[in-house]
Formats: sequence, C-alpha cells, structure tokens
Amino acid sequence: MTDPVLVEVTRGACLLQARVESFHIGAAVAIDASGAIAFQAGDIDRPIYPRSAVKALQQLPLVESGAADKLGLTDDEIALACSSHSGQEVHVAAAASMLRKAGRDEHTLECGVHWPNDQASARKLIAEGAQPSAIHNNCSGKHSGFICLACARGEDPAGYVQPDHPTMRQVTAALSAMTGAKLDDSNRGTDGCSIPTFAIPLRALALGFARFGSAQGLSPERAKATRRIREAVAKNPLMVAGTGRFDTRMMTAMGARVFCKGGAEGVHCAAIPELGLGIAVKCDDGAGRGADVATAALIDRFLRPNNEEVAALVRPVLNNWNGIQVGEMRPAGPLL
Amino acid sequence: MTDPVLVEVTRGACLLQARVESFHIGAAVAIDASGAIAFQAGDIDRPIYPRSAVKALQQLPLVESGAADKLGLTDDEIALACSSHSGQEVHVAAAASMLRKAGRDEHTLECGVHWPNDQASARKLIAEGAQPSAIHNNCSGKHSGFICLACARGEDPAGYVQPDHPTMRQVTAALSAMTGAKLDDSNRGTDGCSIPTFAIPLRALALGFARFGSAQGLSPERAKATRRIREAVAKNPLMVAGTGRFDTRMMTAMGARVFCKGGAEGVHCAAIPELGLGIAVKCDDGAGRGADVATAALIDRFLRPNNEEVAALVRPVLNNWNGIQVGEMRPAGPLL
Repeated sequence: MTDPVLVEVTRGACLLQARVESFHIGAAVAIDASGAIAFQAGDIDRPIYPRSAVKALQQLPLVESGAADKLGLTDDEIALACSSHSGQEVHVAAAASMLRKAGRDEHTLECGVHWPNDQASARKLIAEGAQPSAIHNNCSGKHSGFICLACARGEDPAGYVQPDHPTMRQVTAALSAMTGAKLDDSNRGTDGCSIPTFAIPLRALALGFARFGSAQGLSPERAKATRRIREAVAKNPLMVAGTGRFDTRMMTAMGARVFCKGGAEGVHCAAIPELGLGIAVKCDDGAGRGADVATAALIDRFLRPNNEEVAALVRPVLNNWNGIQVGEMRPAGPLL
Repeated sequence: MTDPVLVEVTRGACLLQARVESFHIGAAVAIDASGAIAFQAGDIDRPIYPRSAVKALQQLPLVESGAADKLGLTDDEIALACSSHSGQEVHVAAAASMLRKAGRDEHTLECGVHWPNDQASARKLIAEGAQPSAIHNNCSGKHSGFICLACARGEDPAGYVQPDHPTMRQVTAALSAMTGAKLDDSNRGTDGCSIPTFAIPLRALALGFARFGSAQGLSPERAKATRRIREAVAKNPLMVAGTGRFDTRMMTAMGARVFCKGGAEGVHCAAIPELGLGIAVKCDDGAGRGADVATAALIDRFLRPNNEEVAALVRPVLNNWNGIQVGEMRPAGPLL
C-alpha cells in the first residue's frame, strides 16, 4: 500500500504557472480517546519512530510523581522539558536552572553536544569565543527533566538514557500506557540524543495525544499532570521550540486550543482538547517541512480558526536568497 | 504512476534489528548519447527542475566562446564556475579572482547573500566580526562565470540573471542544445540564486550528460569545452562542492572516471565518460540525501570500482550526537 501525497512544493516564474517541484507522501490520523477516527490517510497501523514528538508524554512521570513540585520546577521549565529547543539563551538558562534544582549541572547530561540550532544564538557563542556544551543540545530540556525525575526520587541519574535505567523505565511505561503500545527490545531504536525511541503505529500515537488532550480514561494523577503540562506549554510556546519555528508559532497563535510537537524524520503529534482529538503525522521521507504543513492543515480543518499565522503555516511561501517568491508549499490529496 | 522506493533510511538498537524509518521514492535513468537506456526506474519523462545539477552545462558558453581563455581563467576557477560551493576560503578566493579578471568585484553578483554553508568557515567569519557577502553564496562561482562571459564579450553584466539578458540567453541555449529540451516561459521557474531554472525530463537531462561525458554529436568547439570542464573539475574536486560533501568525495575517489553534480530538491546528474553514460536522478520529496545515495548506487553499479569511499557513499552510516551508530542509508528496490 502506497501512502498518498499529503503536501506539494511548487516553483515557477510566477504563482500562476508554478509546477510541483517536489512532494511528500505520508500517513496521518486524527482520532478521539474512544478510538473513533475523524481523519485518516495512508497506512496508520505501520509502526514509526515518534522521535521527539512524544516528549510531553515522556515527561508525565516527572509531573505526576511529584518530582517537579518537589524541586519547584516552574511552568517555563516544564515546557522546556517537553521541547526540542533552538538553544536560545532563554532555553539554556531554563535547562541550567532545572539542573541546579536537581543539584546537578550540564555534566550530568547524556544527550551529546551540538551548536545551538538558532543561528543568532550560535553566532553569539562564537563571537564570545565560547564552545557549545550538552546544554545547547536541542534535547537538553528533556534530559534535564529526566535528571530531575531521577534526583527527586533519590536515584542516581548516571546512565539514565539506557532502556533499563529506573528513570527510563518510568518514562517508557508512561509512553506505553498512553499509547497502548507494547514497547520492548523488538521495536526499539536509539534516538539522536541516545535515549530509546520505540516504533509505534500512528493510530496509537494519535490515541495517546487524544488522551493527553482530553484526560479521558486516565488516573486522577495522570489527568492532572496532562493539564499541568499543556498549560505550562500554552503559557510558554517559545520554550517548546524557538523563534520562528512551527510549534512555537502554532501555539503562540492558538494558545491552549492546540498542543503540537514535532519530531525528527517527519513526525508530528498534536492534541485538540476542545474536540478531544489526537493527531499524528508521518512523512514517509522524513521531511519535517512536509509534516509541518500536514499538521497545520489538519488543525485548520478541525478548528477553522481563520487565523493569519495558521494560514501561513498551512501554505508557507518560499522565497529565494534575494527575497523573491519562487514557490510555496501546500496541502494536497486527502488534506484538501 | 507512482515512482518506486530508491533509498531507505534505517534505525534500530543494533543493525540486525533495524527497521526502515523513512524512505525516498523517485526516478532515475542512465542513458547513452544515442538514447539507449542502460537503467531506468520511475517516471523519467516528467519534467523536473534540475536546479544546480546542470551548472557544468551552463558554463559551456564561458569556455567555448573563448571568454575563459581571454580572461586567463585557471582550472580551479573553471571548476568553481560549475560548483555549489561551501563558502570555504579556497572557494571565496577563486570567486574573487574570477571577478577581478572580469574587472569586477562581488558587488556585480546578483545571487543574494547567505552565510558559508561550511560551518567552520562560517565560524571563522563570525569570530572575525565579519559579515557574509554574495561571494559566500554557494552559487557565487557560477555567477562569477556568467559575469566573466559577459565582460569578456564586452556586454554589460547588469541584470545577467534575467532570462532575456544576452548572457543568460547563451547559457539557456547551451542547456537546451545539450538536453534537446525546449526551454521557454512555459517551463521556467526561478532558482534560489535568481537565475531561471527550466523543468526538463530526467531522460533529457541524462542525455545531456551522456553528451557532456562522451562529446558525441557535439561541434568541435563544444566537444573541446566539455573536455576542458571535465578535466578542470577532475583536477579540483574540492572546488565543485566542499570538504566532506558528496560530489567532492565521489570525484576525489573516482577522478576523471566520474563527473557528478547535485542540485537542490533531490536532483543529481552525472556522466561516466568511459561508458558513454549520462545519469539523472530526482528524489520526489526533494531530499538531497536520497539523491546522493541513488547516484552513488548507480555509479557503483556501472563501474564496480571496489572503492571504500564509494561504498561509504552508497551505504552511509548514521551516527547520533554521541557518535553511536543508530542506523544507515541504503539503496532499495530497482537500485539493488
């Protein structure tokens, strides 16, 4: 079964004669907590690695265990724990604060080092003659959350990225409970930041986010944790991604009406609490640009917000180095 | 008609249990100058924008008109004229030299400004407190070639990126003659660097590179120009891309036995002179990583070089931020 075209990328001397230059095939689903499907396209039962799209589910133990409150984590820190951040100063400061509250510093992070993804932030570091550390890694907030969870519970965080570390076991158990998917060695891969990532069907991922957004079927502690995380992110959309990026732009525009989070290799998950819907998208080719447009199109389809920023995310304009519009991206096929 | 899967991207806790995380569909063709097909997959008659993959064909007028010799362009400068370079010092110096020989400087460039794609070079600029100019644009070598062509012929280069400028008319005429494709407003788009890019079927692009590599059916002047360009690039593979990049690595490994050049949105063209073959690849999703692996697989299929570097390009290892191997890319379907 071949997945349908979800997104097209056009180019032309003018928009009227633009032709499709590239396109993204993939699968997408929107579902409620009872499993009723509101939208589906492509193979939604093939397991895919969700990568960073499930960070909010992975932080449920941090909040519901009481660890976040015990360490006095603030809303912006909880939002950062769910982030793939750009390494801007505000992100680095929040990660440092989380680690401090855990009695640790960036040397406890096991995510690896890369330069800030935000170019202005990288340039500032370079101009200062500084080098990046693991705290600039886009996953440092998530890792700081895991370290906070371990330390608040009196566990040694060393090796927390390993599948059988007590902290990672709790994280994996929460992800499994939310999605209903069995997570074990047979569907395990290693993520870019070295934690396990488990292949899960899109349908189960969307179900997990339907539960995350609606709290249906969850224990009181878990339901409370989902609300706390969603509210923390809605108040701090900059913390979850970065300036100009999709998740920050979408949640700045939509507030608490939408939770969304992208992952590497063309994955996006979202929740629309007022409709009880969870959404999961995978571009088969791994393109984040395609998953972004498909996610925006689904959010727009269900909420019809008539919002300029959302419209710009549904149909992004492509400009060249001279600022000339050379094309655009647009939803296609089942997303029309 | 759906194009087949050409390349797979895998991930797993170990290679043995890796699963396909993402995949790239596309079309590819290898053909000789008579039009005989040696390999084909997918729809090879759908016009696609070749983008930067045809730069070598676009520089034929510079060489065959005598402009390159009149201005005393060196082999490394001719190689740079065919490049999408990384903005390393060696690239910037060669572009500056070309512009000087034309009696111009970077202010004549109409390609737009971006930071060097090579991160170490970008960091050096930043550390010096410098800003990038158009000369750091990956297309500045190609644009310098166009300016050299205009100036050597006594034409005003201003507006050389426009389709109806005398210089661009010569460039477009050469591309049309080599590929046999009609290039006009109906299939014209605007490239990232503002010059026209014309949608051309893959079959015609591959034919153009079969002619480029074999000189079959070309006038003596054009045949001589193809040899000059191929030799210049083979001697200076670093000039055509940059440290660690596909075209530089492939031509460093294979020398004059292969000419190859990638373009944006998943396009790659190549010539194998000893077999008289031209190759053209398009990943439908626009992924350069996919086009790279598909091109390497075709070169490996036809030449069987038993070369470690080529093998590494056919099947690249994917490591995460901690240097742990998390997966690989590999040819698939018709490329097996």
